[in-house]
Amino acid sequence: MSFSAVDHGMMARALQLAERGLWTTSPNPRVGCVIVRAGEIVGEGWHVEAGGPHAEVHALRAAGDTARGATAYVTLEPCSHTGRTPPCAEALIAAGVSRVVAAMRDPNPLVAGQGLAMLQAAAIETASGLLENEAGELNIGFVSRMTRRRPWLRLKTAASLDGKTALNNGLSQWITGPDARQDGHRWRARACAILTGIGTVRDDDPQLNVRAVETSRQPLRVVVDSRLEMPLTAKILQGGPVLIAAAVNDEKRANLLRSAGAEVLVLPNAAGKVDLKALLEALAQRGVNEVHAEAGFKLNGSLMREGLVDELLLYLAPCLIGDAASGLFNLPELTTLDGKQLLQLRDVRQIGQDIRLIARLR
Amino acid sequence: MSFSAVDHGMMARALQLAERGLWTTSPNPRVGCVIVRAGEIVGEGWHVEAGGPHAEVHALRAAGDTARGATAYVTLEPCSHTGRTPPCAEALIAAGVSRVVAAMRDPNPLVAGQGLAMLQAAAIETASGLLENEAGELNIGFVSRMTRRRPWLRLKTAASLDGKTALNNGLSQWITGPDARQDGHRWRARACAILTGIGTVRDDDPQLNVRAVETSRQPLRVVVDSRLEMPLTAKILQGGPVLIAAAVNDEKRANLLRSAGAEVLVLPNAAGKVDLKALLEALAQRGVNEVHAEAGFKLNGSLMREGLVDELLLYLAPCLIGDAASGLFNLPELTTLDGKQLLQLRDVRQIGQDIRLIARLR
Repeated sequence: MSFSAVDHGMMARALQLAERGLWTTSPNPRVGCVIVRAGEIVGEGWHVEAGGPHAEVHALRAAGDTARGATAYVTLEPCSHTGRTPPCAEALIAAGVSRVVAAMRDPNPLVAGQGLAMLQAAAIETASGLLENEAGELNIGFVSRMTRRRPWLRLKTAASLDGKTALNNGLSQWITGPDARQDGHRWRARACAILTGIGTVRDDDPQLNVRAVETSRQPLRVVVDSRLEMPLTAKILQGGPVLIAAAVNDEKRANLLRSAGAEVLVLPNAAGKVDLKALLEALAQRGVNEVHAEAGFKLNGSLMREGLVDELLLYLAPCLIGDAASGLFNLPELTTLDGKQLLQLRDVRQIGQDIRLIARLR
Repeated sequence: MSFSAVDHGMMARALQLAERGLWTTSPNPRVGCVIVRAGEIVGEGWHVEAGGPHAEVHALRAAGDTARGATAYVTLEPCSHTGRTPPCAEALIAAGVSRVVAAMRDPNPLVAGQGLAMLQAAAIETASGLLENEAGELNIGFVSRMTRRRPWLRLKTAASLDGKTALNNGLSQWITGPDARQDGHRWRARACAILTGIGTVRDDDPQLNVRAVETSRQPLRVVVDSRLEMPLTAKILQGGPVLIAAAVNDEKRANLLRSAGAEVLVLPNAAGKVDLKALLEALAQRGVNEVHAEAGFKLNGSLMREGLVDELLLYLAPCLIGDAASGLFNLPELTTLDGKQLLQLRDVRQIGQDIRLIARLR
């Protein structure tokens, strides 16, 4: 299938629009739509939040009657089923568009192609696969949930240039500067859930919400707390939903935490710890696309060892703390360098005084 | 003092020329010279190697009679004393230039200003301080030797993203890729001396010469070997001068190493280790401007703790090795983050698959 320069430009624009929903569409994907007739853009739209109209509906409303005979560019295959809103494929048919170009098919293998098929059955020309990589990156968590049944896990951590995150006495806050911390909150804002461990709650007593940037939606906070040791006074229990994943069935303690506003989920593995894979699967079942993990040495290491980390968001501060301090990941000792965990660097830049690296596990 | 746009452009050109001597002028500074008459460049020159003509002489030769009434731009104050070659100030006077602009004064406080004064005494207009920072950076080691009586110490190290340089069994080579290794040899090539410790010699048996890039001059190799444990079969003893710094006066062992081609210097401190500051001072006395240290956890830590490291050249490979592996610097444990060693980031870039950071201690 070949696409024209106009096709490329219009899909790039649709992706720009989709990105406006980066912080708000959860659990839905970010989707944008552009409607073009006779060389002119007659309608634009993007999905703002779950429950509200889909991108196509916004764009069709803007286009009105001019949508007849137009081409619709959508960053994701239009839906064919009735959810909280009617199917977008029907709306496009009703509006009389003559061609629909999708950046990618619905990643859910059970429904992929059905939206395009519904359009084709109505004699509308369809095409897909234009700027597909970009569209997939924008919804990397949604794609992960649909295809792997677990969220995309991005592990955020900050260290000195010698790879140290905290002193052995637990002191760790403010290794990086204000710009890096604000950048970190931007990444929190796009996540559906923020994951941490009881060690971090005890050492730092963090709120783990989005504060340094303005957002209309706060992610779910999730704490791995095998033995239900969460203090009832922990700041994380205030202001918004918290899910505690435990490995023990201590109803009395669980009920105390429930009274403090938390939800408790008991997911033990054979070793008596929280089954992290099962936890991520449970989060996916609740519609969590992207998990933003901010934890310490132990939980970071466990997530890494179990192969559950997809991406590292690593801030390095221009300082040295010394080898006695705590490192980034509790990983098993290697005897040869062949066993090292390879990463694919995606981005390196300076954020204020610090350096930010984005790398994917491979 | 104010300088024109032409002045700035000509000094920038002189600095470019000076940089051609980056790998070769040791122990002399890198110096460039441009001679301009009536808006035209009539001569260019740069210092190539010690014992050969200075930059001014090359440029005056190129200019010939057209130097009369011209302006000479030099990146360093012309010398006023007779060394292996006659004083450049005399040559400029003899050639009849009417104005001399220097980027910086001679950094040696005992002779600073004498070259310019000699020119002024001959009724030549002089100015200095144009692109002074750039000129100082280019000869950062020479300036250090002249003003601090010790070389500029650049510590090169390579680590995984979690700050690990080697496994506990000593395996460390090839953490970074070929591009980073070649880049590392470029930094070796500009150094007057390469410094390492006996631990690295034992673990890696390195040659520590410049191989990955072509150069006409090899740096002196210096090994900190307190107890004279250097194996006579060590690769570093082959092909070029080696200086061994020891803390013990073991004449028998020292003579064996001398027969193998090494020079042995005994510089004990009160703790029975090599006095690293005294070693650097001894190197400065031998004309060493820039020291390139490539050592392990222990010597890196000692250099850092004694405040002898000026700059870090840190390559980070996109991989994780795990916390059990060996870290970058053996530094004392901190109890508060106030004690962390602050760094000033000078450069961050990707070199092949790896990341290179240049940071200065502060």
